[in-house]
Amino acid sequence: MTHVQATGSSPVTDEEIFAGHQGGKLSVTATRPISEPRDLSIAYTPGVAKVSTAIAENGELAREYTWADRLVAVVSDGTAVLGLGDIGASASLPVMEGKSVLFKTFGGLDSIPLVLNTTDVDEIVETLVRLRPSFGAVNLEDVAAPRCFELEDKLKEALDCPVMHDDQHGTAIVTLAALRGANLVLDRDIADQRVVVSGAGAAGVACANILREAGAGDVTVLDSRGIIHAGREGLNPVKERLAETTNTTGLRGGLVEALRGADVFLGLSGATIDESALAGMAPESTVFALSNPDPEVHPEVAARYAAIVATGRSDFPNQINNVLAFPGVFRGALDAGARAITEGMKLAAADAIFAVAQDDLAADRIVPSPLDPRVAPEVAAAVAKAAVEDGVTN
Amino acid sequence: MTHVQATGSSPVTDEEIFAGHQGGKLSVTATRPISEPRDLSIAYTPGVAKVSTAIAENGELAREYTWADRLVAVVSDGTAVLGLGDIGASASLPVMEGKSVLFKTFGGLDSIPLVLNTTDVDEIVETLVRLRPSFGAVNLEDVAAPRCFELEDKLKEALDCPVMHDDQHGTAIVTLAALRGANLVLDRDIADQRVVVSGAGAAGVACANILREAGAGDVTVLDSRGIIHAGREGLNPVKERLAETTNTTGLRGGLVEALRGADVFLGLSGATIDESALAGMAPESTVFALSNPDPEVHPEVAARYAAIVATGRSDFPNQINNVLAFPGVFRGALDAGARAITEGMKLAAADAIFAVAQDDLAADRIVPSPLDPRVAPEVAAAVAKAAVEDGVTN
Repeated sequence: MTHVQATGSSPVTDEEIFAGHQGGKLSVTATRPISEPRDLSIAYTPGVAKVSTAIAENGELAREYTWADRLVAVVSDGTAVLGLGDIGASASLPVMEGKSVLFKTFGGLDSIPLVLNTTDVDEIVETLVRLRPSFGAVNLEDVAAPRCFELEDKLKEALDCPVMHDDQHGTAIVTLAALRGANLVLDRDIADQRVVVSGAGAAGVACANILREAGAGDVTVLDSRGIIHAGREGLNPVKERLAETTNTTGLRGGLVEALRGADVFLGLSGATIDESALAGMAPESTVFALSNPDPEVHPEVAARYAAIVATGRSDFPNQINNVLAFPGVFRGALDAGARAITEGMKLAAADAIFAVAQDDLAADRIVPSPLDPRVAPEVAAAVAKAAVEDGVTN
Repeated sequence: MTHVQATGSSPVTDEEIFAGHQGGKLSVTATRPISEPRDLSIAYTPGVAKVSTAIAENGELAREYTWADRLVAVVSDGTAVLGLGDIGASASLPVMEGKSVLFKTFGGLDSIPLVLNTTDVDEIVETLVRLRPSFGAVNLEDVAAPRCFELEDKLKEALDCPVMHDDQHGTAIVTLAALRGANLVLDRDIADQRVVVSGAGAAGVACANILREAGAGDVTVLDSRGIIHAGREGLNPVKERLAETTNTTGLRGGLVEALRGADVFLGLSGATIDESALAGMAPESTVFALSNPDPEVHPEVAARYAAIVATGRSDFPNQINNVLAFPGVFRGALDAGARAITEGMKLAAADAIFAVAQDDLAADRIVPSPLDPRVAPEVAAAVAKAAVEDGVTN
């Protein structure tokens, strides 16, 4: 298994980074070369008329004779790009191109970035509905909360194909896989654990949901105003739902109150947390400080209180990176001809990521490396199987 | 120079054609491989944040560090696909993929097919305006007339990038190049010629316009109801403009009347024409029977009356194929950073296609082969130069 170890390697320079993006990172190539007149007659006129006619007569044949059915549209409005915030569609494009690179590298999937200079949910939905014959799945990316929840819901309603907001569910899937890994190492059961999620944005909400679905004993979520509880006023609809389904003991207050005696801390807020708050956690706790590029707490500080520490960074052990999930999730959904990505498919993806590394886990190795080539095929197989079981395949 | 010669080669079979389209004809690949953690840190997080931040601060940098600025969107609503008519977006996709293959093969340009399941002009414009940060140029394709004229006009107005409806202008450019070639062989001057265009769809209108701009002595256009003239009632706005600018001698009637004494026949109608109509043309005439897959008249029949005959087919001499124009036109426009494709750029493209083969012309070789690798670079250079001269570069 390849491990991400920046230790010993020189830091990446700005020159290297900008050179690596020069001219963009993607290229559209022909699957078969055009080198003689016969090739032209097959790929273009007159041959292509036979293929178009066949699809006009039987729409199902588009699945076989075009690339659309297996093409992922990587869609963003540029409103929540990495930790940079609302920097706009054009500035988000390098991230979306990078995503397409990863879809190809790990999932063997073609994808195209579609960045929009509208942030209106209905306009984005309408745009993708009009373009529906052009692609086979939608990976939503870097759309700000709470708009991202409404956008994903409406897209899933409007499109008969897999749709997933990766910042929500990719993060949730890998986080669950990592927690399963940590629990194996520590011999803990998720059903007995009290989990605290700091951040009620895209990732925080999705993580809270998947952890509940996976059977977590109790989950408490905090936003910038503190613990979310049923009595709090001014909650948006997403947080109202969270208030109903989490924090079963009715905790109130801030992070110190939430973390007192907690077993797991999930940082997804971008904020820093105080060392003293960690000190109140249960013994041998688990801390995932996932904000990028700056974790909520430095891993070395967290390690004073926690038995297992993970971050989103490649230069510390236990990197929790979405690339472990999305290439395999979309590959599996498309392989199965799924019309949607169900909760069952997400849970299956998390289990598959965990299972790949299961026999080789340690406190500093609770998830496979982002470059582990075994992960995406295993995730794809598990997701495809779950799609069939959930009855969402064509 | 490579010549298209189907003579001697076996016909392309349906099996070959469908096999050549299996799974689609395009692939999106990474320009730089991801094989170690460092690659991931450069192409994706954390490195990509530097590039996105730089673009957020200076939008011009998107030209340098994303693929969008040189990416052609190949856009269709599937309403006039080849000679097949309104077969819909999904069935048009094999043609658009083929177009992308040719953009890459001949122009070295990346492109993505965007097919829409709306035929509403304003909705198509709105969709592309919203996606504007995703691409650098629009190749409109297979949109039915007269809607295609309004769509192209509105897109050119709404987008600050090259927009060209290839069925109009690609055809017009290559037709003009071919007529220049024929005239060199026959020692004729376009200014003295009377040209008859059969068909007032996308290609017919654009051909009539470019021939007038290139100085044709007289151009007469017919639609399914006969010669278009100023006195005719019920003309749509596009045909009204044609009536004002063509048919300066006020001809009325049908094809027999139009062709009597004419020097050049351009068939772009899909209809068949009667041999007797050709018999009335001037001696040593030129006949371009460009409908595909069935020319308006069989080339052997046309050769009884005409000194030079061309078709759109690869299995006869003188194939007039848009692939001679569009890869170089878009390549030149994007190389120059053009905000539009002007009439001057189209005329320059036609001259460049003609010039490539100028020293090697014959009655059965009035245009370069569609596979001639010299053409696209020459066209690109001429178009880029014209863009600068026309003052449309950034």
